[in-house]
Amino acid sequence: MTAGRRLLLTPGPLTTSDAVKAAMQQDLGSRDPAFIALTASIRERLLALAAPQGDFTTVLLQGSGTFVVEAMIGTLVPRDGALLVLENGAYGRRIRELAARMGRRVHALTFGETTPVDPEAVRGALRADPGLTHVAVVQCETTTGLLNPVNAVAEVVRAEGRRLLVDAMSAFGALPPPVGFTALAASSNKCLEGVPGVGFCVIERGALAASKGNAHSVSLDLEAQWRGFEANGQWRFTPPTHVLLALGCALDLLDAEGGPAGRLARYRANAAALIGGMRELGLEPLLPDMLQAPIIVTFPSPGHPRFAFKAFYDALSERGFVIYPGKLTEADTFRMGCIGQLFPDDLGRAVAAVRDVLTGMGVLA
Amino acid sequence: MTAGRRLLLTPGPLTTSDAVKAAMQQDLGSRDPAFIALTASIRERLLALAAPQGDFTTVLLQGSGTFVVEAMIGTLVPRDGALLVLENGAYGRRIRELAARMGRRVHALTFGETTPVDPEAVRGALRADPGLTHVAVVQCETTTGLLNPVNAVAEVVRAEGRRLLVDAMSAFGALPPPVGFTALAASSNKCLEGVPGVGFCVIERGALAASKGNAHSVSLDLEAQWRGFEANGQWRFTPPTHVLLALGCALDLLDAEGGPAGRLARYRANAAALIGGMRELGLEPLLPDMLQAPIIVTFPSPGHPRFAFKAFYDALSERGFVIYPGKLTEADTFRMGCIGQLFPDDLGRAVAAVRDVLTGMGVLA
Repeated sequence: MTAGRRLLLTPGPLTTSDAVKAAMQQDLGSRDPAFIALTASIRERLLALAAPQGDFTTVLLQGSGTFVVEAMIGTLVPRDGALLVLENGAYGRRIRELAARMGRRVHALTFGETTPVDPEAVRGALRADPGLTHVAVVQCETTTGLLNPVNAVAEVVRAEGRRLLVDAMSAFGALPPPVGFTALAASSNKCLEGVPGVGFCVIERGALAASKGNAHSVSLDLEAQWRGFEANGQWRFTPPTHVLLALGCALDLLDAEGGPAGRLARYRANAAALIGGMRELGLEPLLPDMLQAPIIVTFPSPGHPRFAFKAFYDALSERGFVIYPGKLTEADTFRMGCIGQLFPDDLGRAVAAVRDVLTGMGVLA
Repeated sequence: MTAGRRLLLTPGPLTTSDAVKAAMQQDLGSRDPAFIALTASIRERLLALAAPQGDFTTVLLQGSGTFVVEAMIGTLVPRDGALLVLENGAYGRRIRELAARMGRRVHALTFGETTPVDPEAVRGALRADPGLTHVAVVQCETTTGLLNPVNAVAEVVRAEGRRLLVDAMSAFGALPPPVGFTALAASSNKCLEGVPGVGFCVIERGALAASKGNAHSVSLDLEAQWRGFEANGQWRFTPPTHVLLALGCALDLLDAEGGPAGRLARYRANAAALIGGMRELGLEPLLPDMLQAPIIVTFPSPGHPRFAFKAFYDALSERGFVIYPGKLTEADTFRMGCIGQLFPDDLGRAVAAVRDVLTGMGVLA
């Protein structure tokens, strides 16, 4: 398949380094000391990256990012608790849906898809409903690429005596983690540049220890998963061993790049190359710069009658660049990612390919 | 890590072929046509292997085998239904626990860990409790390696007008699938010889279509997952793309080996080499031959005072063979697997290593 040579300008799965993929070339037993040591090391390194204030621990979970977000909500929000969800995109909406499905009481504060969540509105909602025990927020809404003011939200949540649960999926490993969370969930295959198949949650140990029996699901019970790790270093259920070998290597590469600060600098350069180049073609990002995270950029589709997303996608793919469809309910858009093993030159070449394709389609003169 | 050179005599993750691991050396976009085609092909090939009678479909799910077993129960047993669990080992016990946790009414028929489930007892239980809507059984109880009489159970369940849900985890791809199930769950990393990280459920389409809204969890909702696949061929949530590339290759290798019949022949030869060799050392399997599946073999630990499992495990591991601890509540045992990229000569060498190690420990003269 020649597909392997193409660069993924997506929010993940994304382009990983050859070393990360090469790390998957061995079979480890899931109860073997070498794998137990790998698991412990990954848990410690993720905890250090989250830099929480206080006594926290990391729980790994099989599956996609949504699995670990659902597990975080189900484990930490007691059955008689209630969740305030701050919603300005598909990922906030998903948190509302999964909390409702598991039977938790949910109140959603909904903002427009291009509007950051408003901390003062959070304060008002919490004061109006003393039964709300937890607040969930998405740090970087991958729907648009919008960065929410998570630190300001965390301050309000703390001041009101509630607990903050953060979906840091497309931020963790590059953008600074918020200060003052009770739990934060993310996955291996975004800014950490591992492969997909495992997520994790960094959780305040006291809150986790107090959550026994809360979860609606055995598979998604982070308290039971944690007790398993603490008892003998092993996973309760078969772990994706190759995915974890890849994540171990990906964390080495993150260190070698200077940690999250170094990675963020590269992503910022990528975003600048992408946005600057697209602007020259007359394609303005959906979001103003001050709301735009350097993770993924949403562009309104050209209004030209000869533009068709499918043909645009296919032609870019033939030229070696895989872009991403839009996910907004409010506007016809497409997305281009800045994360993964991509460098400013790659984004420059991607913009050149966009220019060629749009010219060929007759959209650009 | 030299660990990669060792053979895994475990129930999975197990030793995979180099080709399976090499298939993971590319990054595919999860919404890309090439990956959509891979997903469709894997769904069809798994359906053909399950050879169900009637109109069935395959739903893939991220995570470990337990995740897909929980998803099968949660999706197919209605909230006002009730589940009869046939239990003769840790995996039957786990089904009882996860069904109870999600709030389903559960009745367990418990047998000894070395006793196959009894179809007549199933008939009695179903007649005694008309509210029982579904029956769950484990085809090969990995706790011991015991093969349950799933076809006889299926006949009783059908005669009593209920629905059968099968955990075929360590059987699928080698042992013939049962005849007459409503749903059957298994995973990529056992007899299919892929890597861990994805499971699947082959489900009667009518039962699946009727299950909308049953599931206790958004992530583990197989009906919603199926609607996603049917709508546009895509996964609802990020799939483990590399794990699926490995599974596609593993299915090619299964075909090349002559399908499940060819694979079963090799596993039978492996089990014969293992059991014959261990018997020569005076180590008799826990189960009589007629109950023993050629998947994993449980041996009672030598009663000799100089035997210690940890030292035994470590010494075998140094010699290149990773074995598995026992999981019985009733007896002190260890396990050795016959599945994965292992051949009779490998099992012969493993037995020779066992002899050397036990002799060195002073357990054998």
